[in-house]
Amino acid sequence: MKLSNTNFKQKFGIAYLLYLFLLMVNTTNAYAFTTISSFQDSQQQQVSGTVYDDQGLPLPGASVIEMGTNNITSTDVDGKFTLNLTSADPILVISYIGFVEQQVLVTSKTIEVRLASQTTFLDEVVLIGYGKARAKDLTGAVATIDLSKTKSQPVADIGQAIQGRAAGVQVYNSGEPGSNVTFRVRGTGTIANNNPLIVVDGMPLNGGLNQVNMNDVESISVLKDASSTAIYGARGANGVVIITTKRGSRQEGSTLSFDTFTGLQSAANMVEVLNASQFAALNNDMLTNGGLTPNPEWTDPSTLGSGTDWVGALFNPELMTNYTLSYGNNSEKSNIYVSGNYFKQKGIVLGTDYERFIVQFNSDTRFNSHIKFGNSLKLAHDIKRRGDYNIQNALLANPTQAITDETGNYTGPTGNPLYSGDILNPIGQAKRVETTTKGYNLQGNIFTEISFLKNFTFKSLGGVEANFWFDRTWSPKYSWGSDVQANSYLYEAANRSITLLWDNTLTYEQRFGNHHINAVIGSSAQENKYNFLNGSIQAFASDNTQQIDNGTLQPTVGGNSSEWAIMSYLGRVNYDFNEKYYVTATIRRDGSSRFGAGNKWGWFPSAALAWRISGEKFMENVTSINDLKLRLGYGVTGNQEIGNYAFSSAYNTVLYNFNNSYVSAVVPTILPNTNVKWEGQEQFNIGIDASFCDSRINLILDGYIKNTNDMLVPMSVPVTSGYSDIYVPSINAGKIVNKGIELSLSTKNFVGEFQWSTDAVFSYNKNEVQSINGDTPIITGSTGLNSSISLIQAGYPVNVFYGYVTDGIFQTQADVNNHAVQMPGSNPATSTAPGDIRFKDLNSDGIINDKDRTFIGNPNPDFTFSLNNSFAYKNFDLSIYFQGVYGNDIYNANRMYTESMSIVNNQTTETLDRWNGIGTSNTMPRAVYGDPNANARVSDRFVEDGSYLKLKNINLGYTFPSETFKNVFSSARIYLSAQNVFTITDYKGFDPEVSVNGIDNNVYPVTSIFSIGLNVAF
Amino acid sequence: MKLSNTNFKQKFGIAYLLYLFLLMVNTTNAYAFTTISSFQDSQQQQVSGTVYDDQGLPLPGASVIEMGTNNITSTDVDGKFTLNLTSADPILVISYIGFVEQQVLVTSKTIEVRLASQTTFLDEVVLIGYGKARAKDLTGAVATIDLSKTKSQPVADIGQAIQGRAAGVQVYNSGEPGSNVTFRVRGTGTIANNNPLIVVDGMPLNGGLNQVNMNDVESISVLKDASSTAIYGARGANGVVIITTKRGSRQEGSTLSFDTFTGLQSAANMVEVLNASQFAALNNDMLTNGGLTPNPEWTDPSTLGSGTDWVGALFNPELMTNYTLSYGNNSEKSNIYVSGNYFKQKGIVLGTDYERFIVQFNSDTRFNSHIKFGNSLKLAHDIKRRGDYNIQNALLANPTQAITDETGNYTGPTGNPLYSGDILNPIGQAKRVETTTKGYNLQGNIFTEISFLKNFTFKSLGGVEANFWFDRTWSPKYSWGSDVQANSYLYEAANRSITLLWDNTLTYEQRFGNHHINAVIGSSAQENKYNFLNGSIQAFASDNTQQIDNGTLQPTVGGNSSEWAIMSYLGRVNYDFNEKYYVTATIRRDGSSRFGAGNKWGWFPSAALAWRISGEKFMENVTSINDLKLRLGYGVTGNQEIGNYAFSSAYNTVLYNFNNSYVSAVVPTILPNTNVKWEGQEQFNIGIDASFCDSRINLILDGYIKNTNDMLVPMSVPVTSGYSDIYVPSINAGKIVNKGIELSLSTKNFVGEFQWSTDAVFSYNKNEVQSINGDTPIITGSTGLNSSISLIQAGYPVNVFYGYVTDGIFQTQADVNNHAVQMPGSNPATSTAPGDIRFKDLNSDGIINDKDRTFIGNPNPDFTFSLNNSFAYKNFDLSIYFQGVYGNDIYNANRMYTESMSIVNNQTTETLDRWNGIGTSNTMPRAVYGDPNANARVSDRFVEDGSYLKLKNINLGYTFPSETFKNVFSSARIYLSAQNVFTITDYKGFDPEVSVNGIDNNVYPVTSIFSIGLNVAF
Repeated sequence: MKLSNTNFKQKFGIAYLLYLFLLMVNTTNAYAFTTISSFQDSQQQQVSGTVYDDQGLPLPGASVIEMGTNNITSTDVDGKFTLNLTSADPILVISYIGFVEQQVLVTSKTIEVRLASQTTFLDEVVLIGYGKARAKDLTGAVATIDLSKTKSQPVADIGQAIQGRAAGVQVYNSGEPGSNVTFRVRGTGTIANNNPLIVVDGMPLNGGLNQVNMNDVESISVLKDASSTAIYGARGANGVVIITTKRGSRQEGSTLSFDTFTGLQSAANMVEVLNASQFAALNNDMLTNGGLTPNPEWTDPSTLGSGTDWVGALFNPELMTNYTLSYGNNSEKSNIYVSGNYFKQKGIVLGTDYERFIVQFNSDTRFNSHIKFGNSLKLAHDIKRRGDYNIQNALLANPTQAITDETGNYTGPTGNPLYSGDILNPIGQAKRVETTTKGYNLQGNIFTEISFLKNFTFKSLGGVEANFWFDRTWSPKYSWGSDVQANSYLYEAANRSITLLWDNTLTYEQRFGNHHINAVIGSSAQENKYNFLNGSIQAFASDNTQQIDNGTLQPTVGGNSSEWAIMSYLGRVNYDFNEKYYVTATIRRDGSSRFGAGNKWGWFPSAALAWRISGEKFMENVTSINDLKLRLGYGVTGNQEIGNYAFSSAYNTVLYNFNNSYVSAVVPTILPNTNVKWEGQEQFNIGIDASFCDSRINLILDGYIKNTNDMLVPMSVPVTSGYSDIYVPSINAGKIVNKGIELSLSTKNFVGEFQWSTDAVFSYNKNEVQSINGDTPIITGSTGLNSSISLIQAGYPVNVFYGYVTDGIFQTQADVNNHAVQMPGSNPATSTAPGDIRFKDLNSDGIINDKDRTFIGNPNPDFTFSLNNSFAYKNFDLSIYFQGVYGNDIYNANRMYTESMSIVNNQTTETLDRWNGIGTSNTMPRAVYGDPNANARVSDRFVEDGSYLKLKNINLGYTFPSETFKNVFSSARIYLSAQNVFTITDYKGFDPEVSVNGIDNNVYPVTSIFSIGLNVAF
Repeated sequence: MKLSNTNFKQKFGIAYLLYLFLLMVNTTNAYAFTTISSFQDSQQQQVSGTVYDDQGLPLPGASVIEMGTNNITSTDVDGKFTLNLTSADPILVISYIGFVEQQVLVTSKTIEVRLASQTTFLDEVVLIGYGKARAKDLTGAVATIDLSKTKSQPVADIGQAIQGRAAGVQVYNSGEPGSNVTFRVRGTGTIANNNPLIVVDGMPLNGGLNQVNMNDVESISVLKDASSTAIYGARGANGVVIITTKRGSRQEGSTLSFDTFTGLQSAANMVEVLNASQFAALNNDMLTNGGLTPNPEWTDPSTLGSGTDWVGALFNPELMTNYTLSYGNNSEKSNIYVSGNYFKQKGIVLGTDYERFIVQFNSDTRFNSHIKFGNSLKLAHDIKRRGDYNIQNALLANPTQAITDETGNYTGPTGNPLYSGDILNPIGQAKRVETTTKGYNLQGNIFTEISFLKNFTFKSLGGVEANFWFDRTWSPKYSWGSDVQANSYLYEAANRSITLLWDNTLTYEQRFGNHHINAVIGSSAQENKYNFLNGSIQAFASDNTQQIDNGTLQPTVGGNSSEWAIMSYLGRVNYDFNEKYYVTATIRRDGSSRFGAGNKWGWFPSAALAWRISGEKFMENVTSINDLKLRLGYGVTGNQEIGNYAFSSAYNTVLYNFNNSYVSAVVPTILPNTNVKWEGQEQFNIGIDASFCDSRINLILDGYIKNTNDMLVPMSVPVTSGYSDIYVPSINAGKIVNKGIELSLSTKNFVGEFQWSTDAVFSYNKNEVQSINGDTPIITGSTGLNSSISLIQAGYPVNVFYGYVTDGIFQTQADVNNHAVQMPGSNPATSTAPGDIRFKDLNSDGIINDKDRTFIGNPNPDFTFSLNNSFAYKNFDLSIYFQGVYGNDIYNANRMYTESMSIVNNQTTETLDRWNGIGTSNTMPRAVYGDPNANARVSDRFVEDGSYLKLKNINLGYTFPSETFKNVFSSARIYLSAQNVFTITDYKGFDPEVSVNGIDNNVYPVTSIFSIGLNVAF
């Protein structure tokens, strides 16, 4: 569902800020709330009950006191208690460390109490580089994600689940089954690889994040500022996402859990195209305007009816299901966690689907008081299938053409192409071609921790990641009308990537008086080898013999390998005095095979200070402030994702004719830049952590300036020099700056029997390219029409849209004549005429050409935000999660085709309002074959506001009372969850979540999902 | 070392039987032996000590009593005790269940006692199909291997370690690093795949046995007769090897163990070839006799000296090392076993080596009293490298040619080929070509066991085996003398094989009175998919750009896939009355994708009876017999290893010329036999298990008749029909019978402080092919000279050698003239002449031709045997292991080249005794260029006796007293071990262990290994 709102930008911004403000007020008022129910009979009686935590799990060891008496007990291992009451109006006071005390008036013989967690983000243990820290002690900007809020979402992987949950971390999601999300931490920092380093269980992840089973994840942190990422040196510049998986049972002893959901997916929004009658009418109009003869059979288009709904045939509601069975056990000597996951998703686009199996096995063994060892192991197998689907083709396909003919064969354009068009049957295309990728992945490590001399711990971790994937594309020969592929074709590829890691760290921790020091030094060595082999062949005698050995024509073979290695030394000192003054200093030295001889090794230092203001004497009386800390950090990091061989020449092997015989030779294709190095970045961060009102309002506020100083850019070669088509070497000369503000606010509005908490996240980022070593822009997006859409140029944000500026529609020939020349001539079929778009003559030279292009849009949002409200009452829980983006533009490239009205393609219903006489439209031009005025050129006509507000998820759960099944389950919860419920946006395409660069060209849309789920523990 | 013995067959047989007899006598006498030392001072005193088991591990809970007193104690967890003695001559009686009681006269204040295990094979729990059984209760023929005897051998894998250890199980071993052993259980039962089914941790193993780390193996059983293998139905006919890996700590609590050895390998024996002078003299002789001009530079061959030792350069002593670190833990809720193994072996042949990593992880969890679950997981990675080595070429290479020239380049033949020969430089060949196979393997399963209603257990096991292997061959261009390869060449292949298994069994066990019943029913489903992709390309501009993408000429691509599946139902009932009368009945129904439509499903039944004679009343007084059991079994099994698509047509895609354009078509290349099915086999077994003399002599004796009835043989097409070169379908019409006797004898000769035990194994098998559906023999071995060496023909054993029969050497022309015509003519350079071999005119037709060939040798041994003696005294242990084979012939095909004296190749020193005048030799013919008489034809000249006796292993170990390191290790043992120490044989080649078919053609020889090893537990 998509709700359109024309003045969206203005209204929305104000409404949101208002909402935030109201929440704050409400929260502060709600502080004193405590549940007291009305009372019943009051003689001496026995009451029994169960105490749960805020996750609905029984809470053992909670203290239960009858107020004003000495009657006291505590809950047993199942969270149960029994108490003889003596008061007239007995009130039970139930408390447990880390939870908000609750008072309950006893009104029945059995009661169930759910305690709200008192822990705040300050109490959490947060993952940092090569270690952990209390959030309280952090000096850098680290976002942690509360997984209890994300777990019931019907999504394929953890990347999608955390979208919008962390300030400063943007997640771009694709709807295609099996695709991975794209992360951006604090804006786009480079024109090269912007992906943050993802570290899973201590190992940088080489494969995709969809290898990680969401249910296995124990915690996630995102290191954002340089003072926290500098410990990752040349890989820290894009931020670091640290993920750990579970390492035992969540409770004492052992737990066997089963989690599942099934969801129905559907397209969140459809783009409406013309039906057969409308299409024929448009075609007649277009051909007539183009000076051509319309289809004589379409003299009365209305007789054609609605025709084929190609888009409807391509998109279908489909199921996705997820099952996880896991077992965890904690014992004196060891912890163990093992789980198996099966996920299957059929895509809403015909022919796409994804299937995945994951096994996770983690163990920890305490061999004796000094030695501990353990392992993490993840095995994942996935199968991704897709036909050669083309969403744009479904929009453009001729609605007067049936999908299949009488014999069931797919149709193709037949007859005069001016009436039939040339679009390949999009349903046939999606179903006949089979592209399959089968992946087999292992990520495993073993580690040993040896503690000695009281203060020292040595840890050594050795890991391996092995990724094998096999691609296969089968394309049968076909003859669909005029679309003919004469030979069947088979392509296969085998890929393998093996990564080895060896990390060693030595940690020293000491407290003396008010001084506390924690220091770590270490080394890290990692290497990767990648290898592929592929081959293709054509002309199979039968479609049933789909094996390379059976192909007969044009064999091709390809294969190559590449490798990289990095060797690093690292050190960090954390010092604090009385938990009041904090100093952190880190340094990393990285040597990478990717850097040129002149710059093999780099230093990456950082420093941070923090001052807990609330720890000072003068704050002692400010009781409403529980915690207040100021953080300052600065650091230098790098981005080594610059390709494996940027420093060296690239050589190609070529055959050349030497004395009439062919001789092979190795020739250089690029000049080497032996000084090539990491893309250096410096970042300054200032932050405040605050906790108010009995820790029920928690706030993290950060501001940063991030300067990328050594971005790799092409050597400056003017496009006019004639050399633009050769490979030019890259040099570390570009500069980008990102500045931003981030806010995370979480409040516990009600903490009694009825619980309500709110989490709001707000991120503002401003991006500007400062230098790209010259004036020649770097083209980063272009269309199939071979014209650039987005550029990188100094003085602008990255990937700004570049094109012509429209200025309404010529209503009369006089308008045309009075304006600068667009397409000269007097024949309206071949030159600019009334009904064509007027483009602004920006340089006022009287002619509209390339020089009249300018910057017409910015795909980078001004800010992103999310708002989560969680409610719980008795056995029910509800969460409502909004997520949004504001201020970004989208270049809707699909419309360049679906609104061009220039060739025999179907068009959107927007074209019904096309110009057909003076004053009929000032936005949608006339239909004319060949588009002589180039109305569909890259212009602001196709730039749209990409802001949106989505009800990203709504989740209603019911936890069964433990009595109902006590001998079978230890806990059970059922829930309904809906994803992408509705979207408020002005964007006209399928969905405003397109991609990082903001160009919507044939993008697989994000889907709406309605699901039912179950969590059971035994 | 090889000791030659000309009358070996006669002498050895007698000596061996005598030895066995003496041992028996000795053992019986030794029965009463008990250690009593002389005594010292006799007042009241305290004695302390440690009690060990026969593995040298401390034995907790052993009882220690001072004889004739009430002084009693038991050993603590470290096997230690302290006791106050009161007798004058105190004697301690030390006992523990399952160990032989020992009496020790106390002569010092601390004593160490090692108890001998009393357990016999009858007490062992033995792996059987889909379950376990006490050896005592077995009704079938199952060989178990005592792994304590095999563990300290310096070998690469468990297959090599168990060679000779089990009666009826022959292991053929190759010396090449990374190769797998070949098993034969009870002789060769088919001309198709003879490999037994190998089941590791419940899963049929698809990859090689060298994926299994020896140190991880807990137990091995080999199911030999049909009554035990019928539960594996269509996969049982070749026997079944069942292996389980460790599932926890060997002791209570947890153990961390480290095991390692390093061994130096060298060629066990060298074949001696001519030096340069001798080679030149031979060449002169050969050319002169051939009517050609000898090399004028070699008029005095002695001046050439010794020349190049090509064989010595190809073979070099090299190291092999093995490391295993393992951890096991047993706790109330769970068991865990995890280990890592690294093995590296450089081969003794230049350019060969093997490297392997294995991780094994097994766990068991008792979730509650009804539910248990667990997993087994094996991850293995190996790298096998070999050049294009050619041992025969090293024997044949010209010793007057240097290995490299002055510039360090490899040499090749230059000048007149009559003097230089044409052998490719064998050192260059081994070093320049690089062939690498990298394997990545996973075998894992998870299982659940649910017990209910007291007597029922349901077990479900799901498993997966994933094997990926990548081949790569790089061959640079070269120009070595006249040997030129113009283009470099690269070949790569990616292979993947995925196997899935799902087994379900329901077991019922009940005892009522003297009746005991154990019944199991179940199902098993398994499928395998195999896929490969390969490609090659030629002509690389540089040897440094070894990537497919850089090749320029003749790309090729290949790829295919195949799959098979089997679905099975199985049932077994074991019933015994009072452990006296046993009945076992099993049935399996298998449906396999490999069988034709007419025979998709087969039944495989078996039945067995056993009678414990020693349980009868009349045996009560025969105290010297502890146990005596008679077994009878009969069953029907099958061999489904007949290829995946034997039932169907094979089709090839071909291009044919149709109206001058090429058209591809699918054409059948083989007629289908839709009735194709498993190779059926029936087997009858009779066996005796006996235990005498206080269970110190244990004997298992089996006799069997094994009839393979439905062996797949080609449809009968006479070779003369002209159709022999097309593919003919196979039909289930062949018959082979194997009859044999097996004996396993193990005796405990001394059981006191000095311990001595002996294990003897003897296997006799007689093999005969009864039918191959016609008279046309099937050729199973041939030489590069394109003549058949071995055949399969009805009435003979499989793979009998077939050729001419020699009858000495013609000493005079009169001899030649008086004999049947061999090569007519009067010119000795081109016709038979004095000095040539006389072949027997078997059909007396006066001409020696193909019809004079007959059966000239049998590669199947009459019997195989082994003898292991283990000794232990105080902290030392020693084992001496002999293994041998008797009565088999070897066709030494190498000698067809190294003794042909017909072309410019080097020859063995045997040719120094060649015929050079009347009476000079009656065995080694004259040297003559071109060999006009075909002296080197396939004949009994090259058939040799392959019998051998090897000192296979000798092992001396020392276990450190626990006091010496008590706070660091819990046990430590160091040992010296030598493998293949010496061989007594008449065989003239490198080593008589050649291969199953007995043809020694370029076989990589078995090596001698001297090693040092260490086992430590923490």
